[in-house]
Amino acid sequence: MKITDRKTEIITVAAQLFKEKGYSAVTMRDIAQAMDIKAASLYNHIKSKQEILVLIVIEIAEEFTNTINEVVSSNETTIKKIERIIQLHIDITLRDANALACLNNDWMHLADAELTYFIKMREDYEENFRTIIKKGIADGEIKNLNLEVIIFSTLSTLRTLYLWYGKKKSPDPKVLKSNMIQVLLNGIVVD
Amino acid sequence: MKITDRKTEIITVAAQLFKEKGYSAVTMRDIAQAMDIKAASLYNHIKSKQEILVLIVIEIAEEFTNTINEVVSSNETTIKKIERIIQLHIDITLRDANALACLNNDWMHLADAELTYFIKMREDYEENFRTIIKKGIADGEIKNLNLEVIIFSTLSTLRTLYLWYGKKKSPDPKVLKSNMIQVLLNGIVVD
Repeated sequence: MKITDRKTEIITVAAQLFKEKGYSAVTMRDIAQAMDIKAASLYNHIKSKQEILVLIVIEIAEEFTNTINEVVSSNETTIKKIERIIQLHIDITLRDANALACLNNDWMHLADAELTYFIKMREDYEENFRTIIKKGIADGEIKNLNLEVIIFSTLSTLRTLYLWYGKKKSPDPKVLKSNMIQVLLNGIVVD
Repeated sequence: MKITDRKTEIITVAAQLFKEKGYSAVTMRDIAQAMDIKAASLYNHIKSKQEILVLIVIEIAEEFTNTINEVVSSNETTIKKIERIIQLHIDITLRDANALACLNNDWMHLADAELTYFIKMREDYEENFRTIIKKGIADGEIKNLNLEVIIFSTLSTLRTLYLWYGKKKSPDPKVLKSNMIQVLLNGIVVD
């Protein structure tokens, strides 16, 4: 997906508004106003609010998809694979928290083919993660615990990072990464 | 808060509808229709949609609050305290997943004093959890990692359990509990 600079600006402003007010409550007029341009100019670049949502959500979903596809087929250890997935979620959260909020809160407002495509990517992502953990268990790297508990404990932590990171008391990115890896992989209890 | 049987039924039906369509999209008429009664009868028991939301959200928030207040002031080990908090979230998820979805998605639609009260309870809950973890670190039970990473990794897993538990491949409640405790406390990697 190739995106012009003006489109990038529209997406950035819209993602912020969607996060604050929710997708349904935001109008194209609100977006134009926040950019200090006329609504008519906005339509020169983008044809609808739905197109903006597609650009925000699908762009990020594809980034997650491409990376996990690469990770799952690599020859690294399972632990290294999980570390790369943690890094992926942290990188996107630091770079684009508003877009992640939009993905989490508003994906269900996607229409037709894009909705189907998004749901497929989300399911494939979980299935790829499941494949990684299964191999880790088979190789004796990961504890033989219930797969769903492992997968959703890990993913829910990573998927909701954008909700709290950046508030006061948040660690810097380096501490975030090293501590997140420790907590998710080795737990919080002193042995 | 004392709740009559009829109110309990209203709350149950409304929580289901709020989860499916979102609080804003549901009308009192929808709720009456789903209960197969007249809207006028509904108003004999409850005065507004807002009152229903208060009953759902505040009820559960108070249950979380009361339990963590009791846990934080107990003389148990930190590990035992965290296990009780995990148990609390699992119990409420198993019993009342729709109400939890409503709490998570719709709390911001609370008004005035109830909104303030809810936010205070939520902040106090996190602060109590912080106190428990801090004591655990001081006592050498919990690893000396960044507090926010520990707290929000744990809470986000527990708070989003309702999103996936109950789908196919979910473990039974006993396995859920023991595996969740292991994953959150001791991690997923084989030592």
